[in-house]
Amino acid sequence: MPTDLPTAPDRRVRTPMAWNGWGDPARAGDLPKGVTRLLERELGVGAAVTRPSVPLEAVAVPESRLPAAVRDRLAGLLGSEAVLDDRDSRIRHAGGRSYPDLVRLRAGDASHAPDAVVRPGSHDEVREVLRVCTEAGVAVVPFGGGTSVVGGVEPLRGRFEAVVTLDLSRMDRLVALDPVARVARFEPGLRGAEAEALLAARGHTLGHFPQSFEYATVGGFVATRSAGQASTGYGRSDDLVEGVRCATPVGDLDLGRAPASAAGPDLLELVVGSEGTLGVLTEVALRVRRAPEARRYEGWALPSWEAGQAAFRAVAQDGPLPDIARLSDADETRIAIAQASGAKGAVLQGLLAVRGRRRGCLAILGYEGADADVRHRRRAVARVLRSHGGRALGQAVGRSWEHGRYHGPYLRDPLMDRGVLVETLETAADWSRLPALYAEVRQALRSALSTGGRPPVVLCHISHLYAAGASLYFTFIAPVSRGEELARWRAAKDAAGAAITGVGATITHHHAVGRDHLPWMEAEVGVLGVAALRAVKERLDPAGIMNPGKLLP
Amino acid sequence: MPTDLPTAPDRRVRTPMAWNGWGDPARAGDLPKGVTRLLERELGVGAAVTRPSVPLEAVAVPESRLPAAVRDRLAGLLGSEAVLDDRDSRIRHAGGRSYPDLVRLRAGDASHAPDAVVRPGSHDEVREVLRVCTEAGVAVVPFGGGTSVVGGVEPLRGRFEAVVTLDLSRMDRLVALDPVARVARFEPGLRGAEAEALLAARGHTLGHFPQSFEYATVGGFVATRSAGQASTGYGRSDDLVEGVRCATPVGDLDLGRAPASAAGPDLLELVVGSEGTLGVLTEVALRVRRAPEARRYEGWALPSWEAGQAAFRAVAQDGPLPDIARLSDADETRIAIAQASGAKGAVLQGLLAVRGRRRGCLAILGYEGADADVRHRRRAVARVLRSHGGRALGQAVGRSWEHGRYHGPYLRDPLMDRGVLVETLETAADWSRLPALYAEVRQALRSALSTGGRPPVVLCHISHLYAAGASLYFTFIAPVSRGEELARWRAAKDAAGAAITGVGATITHHHAVGRDHLPWMEAEVGVLGVAALRAVKERLDPAGIMNPGKLLP
Repeated sequence: MPTDLPTAPDRRVRTPMAWNGWGDPARAGDLPKGVTRLLERELGVGAAVTRPSVPLEAVAVPESRLPAAVRDRLAGLLGSEAVLDDRDSRIRHAGGRSYPDLVRLRAGDASHAPDAVVRPGSHDEVREVLRVCTEAGVAVVPFGGGTSVVGGVEPLRGRFEAVVTLDLSRMDRLVALDPVARVARFEPGLRGAEAEALLAARGHTLGHFPQSFEYATVGGFVATRSAGQASTGYGRSDDLVEGVRCATPVGDLDLGRAPASAAGPDLLELVVGSEGTLGVLTEVALRVRRAPEARRYEGWALPSWEAGQAAFRAVAQDGPLPDIARLSDADETRIAIAQASGAKGAVLQGLLAVRGRRRGCLAILGYEGADADVRHRRRAVARVLRSHGGRALGQAVGRSWEHGRYHGPYLRDPLMDRGVLVETLETAADWSRLPALYAEVRQALRSALSTGGRPPVVLCHISHLYAAGASLYFTFIAPVSRGEELARWRAAKDAAGAAITGVGATITHHHAVGRDHLPWMEAEVGVLGVAALRAVKERLDPAGIMNPGKLLP
Repeated sequence: MPTDLPTAPDRRVRTPMAWNGWGDPARAGDLPKGVTRLLERELGVGAAVTRPSVPLEAVAVPESRLPAAVRDRLAGLLGSEAVLDDRDSRIRHAGGRSYPDLVRLRAGDASHAPDAVVRPGSHDEVREVLRVCTEAGVAVVPFGGGTSVVGGVEPLRGRFEAVVTLDLSRMDRLVALDPVARVARFEPGLRGAEAEALLAARGHTLGHFPQSFEYATVGGFVATRSAGQASTGYGRSDDLVEGVRCATPVGDLDLGRAPASAAGPDLLELVVGSEGTLGVLTEVALRVRRAPEARRYEGWALPSWEAGQAAFRAVAQDGPLPDIARLSDADETRIAIAQASGAKGAVLQGLLAVRGRRRGCLAILGYEGADADVRHRRRAVARVLRSHGGRALGQAVGRSWEHGRYHGPYLRDPLMDRGVLVETLETAADWSRLPALYAEVRQALRSALSTGGRPPVVLCHISHLYAAGASLYFTFIAPVSRGEELARWRAAKDAAGAAITGVGATITHHHAVGRDHLPWMEAEVGVLGVAALRAVKERLDPAGIMNPGKLLP
């Protein structure tokens, strides 16, 4: 064991998230020209900022309803600097980064702000906070990076008078790294990028790279079953979990004694994905790998969406697997080309090669690992892709994807400035149902979001491969009238949710349930599945203070 | 989809299990000479049968306590030929195949026999049986192949007056095979070997080969989280599950809508491994693969247990994986050589090569799949083994292992005939804890089972590899006085269980909890983990009729 552990990241360089949009305000930018042109051409949306956010000063925050006595008890436990009820702290914890969250905040509505933000520094402090809040009847919303796009950290009161957000950013250490078992134990509030940096300094990697990677936390990964861009190879966050410590209102759950067990139902899988409704993850033990010698990302052109699917299925079922496997449909491919139209040289060359094929689809394949392993897998996958008509576009296209891999969410803010509804949703199904799933969800979104005969832009890609199936990730963009943003968004979600459950697919492959997917939980696990979850919830959180209004209908 | 489904196996060739021992009586045999010599030399046990089983006629079966009215209701539902309370049926369902089960039966004690055996033919009939038994207050013990070695199918009454065994052997069809998603749906009562035969006829394999393969059922696999000999490559039974249908006393659970999901806790993982305590699995959807082009099993000699472990860890963590990976410790290697001492030619040559090294350990590596894939993995694994001092012993040793791969349990009966306690237990831990786990369990068994200064024979092998750790499978053999079999067995289990939980390992890697591992469930998942399981149980089986006395302390 290295002797320098536990270790915290350098908190001085931790950039806070914009209060009303994605990421580091210093890195936000305007739309690329290709996207501006596209908005104009396909949606009739001009380049002017027609719907800017209100400034921070103009945001309305309701009075805190947290009783002074409870506030004092919490401050007595944690120190007064760890119980915050100033305006700025409350606004910054008023929601996650879903489209509805941002619509409200940009309009100056922080009516969902928590009554206070508490920042415990240890497992025992978390336990104490839960004890006090259970006694006082105060709802508790666990908060990691605040990146939920499904309303998962929206401070709902449930049947309680007050709600506090339990911010885990002080619990951010790499606690232990076992290089023999290759398991790292983390506190929950460490960001993905910070975890990678701490591991890299010790020759390891977690290999978990969701688009929210720079802000999302390791605890959040586990609480929401996140998948990352390389999860086809490294496994989803839930695949990486070796153990958890979870503080519930009635005591601790310490789970995970072996890499595999037959000792009854897997209770780890009950806590993983519980989205803060059962308790607070205070430590997660995750599998790590040796830092890769080689990383190689490359672009491929497939002759059609169907051919690409067939190729990806062959790879997923007969192996070997790439780490990253992404296949854009013809529309997303077209947009990728448009976005890159300012680019020079090899990237554009490669992308244009796709356009040369009528229904050409762009694929990104990525490999990380030992040199020989990367070489072997890349060759084998290339053979399969070629046998399905694929053409290699080279590494420049792969590097271009890599360069922008975490940038997507930054585009949403300038799109919203222009009065555009922009949202993503994701699902998964087995290979047999994938074509129907694709067709039905596209059709549902197009029907729900057409305006004056003009359809929305609907893009899709396959983002993760499994032997039995794959995930589909949709992006949809449509102009929307002021004041109708949330109603149109709801209509689109409802239509897509009905399509997804109608096909028999899952309502979410990696975004989690939160508030937004509640209406489909019964379709997902059945009346009795919900009842079983509720029975566990009632046992572990009898007062019902943990993240009310999420996960359980 | 093939049009010949659903399909049942040829039930005419289904051999019943011996009433008082393992497997097909026609295949039972006496001990190999090598084992006889070993008993004599290491344990002072002679070759004479000193403790034979009583004959079937001499078994005492108590009067059935099932009320006639309940019997009639069940017969009305299922037909009278599907409600059996004859002596033979009840004896054959009086337990599984654990050492205590056999000790009792061989002594003529069938006091644990169920009051009746019911054989529903469909999901709906299972539902009806559960309804009637809930109303009447009759305990229900789901029964697949009856191969449990942990008391999982012992008919315990709990607080009820009567107990029936719900035998699933009539629900034995391959219901559907989706060659695109590569998912097969089975009824639960289909035996492993039968499932393989039905799949093989369609070009597929499940790849699940526990030692009980010829008798255990696919429903039993899922209900107990079984692992098979090739699970390092194919995955454990719980890895193969894509969906289940489970009839509970209060309704159905239909779970599994996608290969992966972020829709909350994974309820599939709550039903998988529930050992009949929540309901009855009436259909399981399992991932299958294309039938392998090539199968190659081979022997290796590693210079020591420690070197073998290091080699296996390198393979498990950096890949590629073999499908079968088994490493015998020095004692098990010695016994393997003794057992094979009658063999000729290459096998013996290979095994003797191991003996040439003082602490030499025998490993079996197996590969199944496409030719190129088998070749690639075999070469890569061979490189790793060689770099740890391994020496290839060739395929003859592998074939010898393959030939006897399901024969082990047949040896137990003639050993018991000679008054020998023979039992296996298995556990798993991360690689860091594996050396301590090995040492502590061995020591515990040796202390508990030494007689007059003579230690038991304790053998161990690594049976399954994971990135973070591995499983250890122990076999222990000791002479035991008549009448003290169960007390000595209990003492050995207690000592081993304390050692396992003391090291922080899991109490069972693939045998399940049943009755025998109950005392350690709290150590395994904590007081609160047990409470969470109990909350689910109370919600799905409010009367508590499902397999009482199992899984939950």
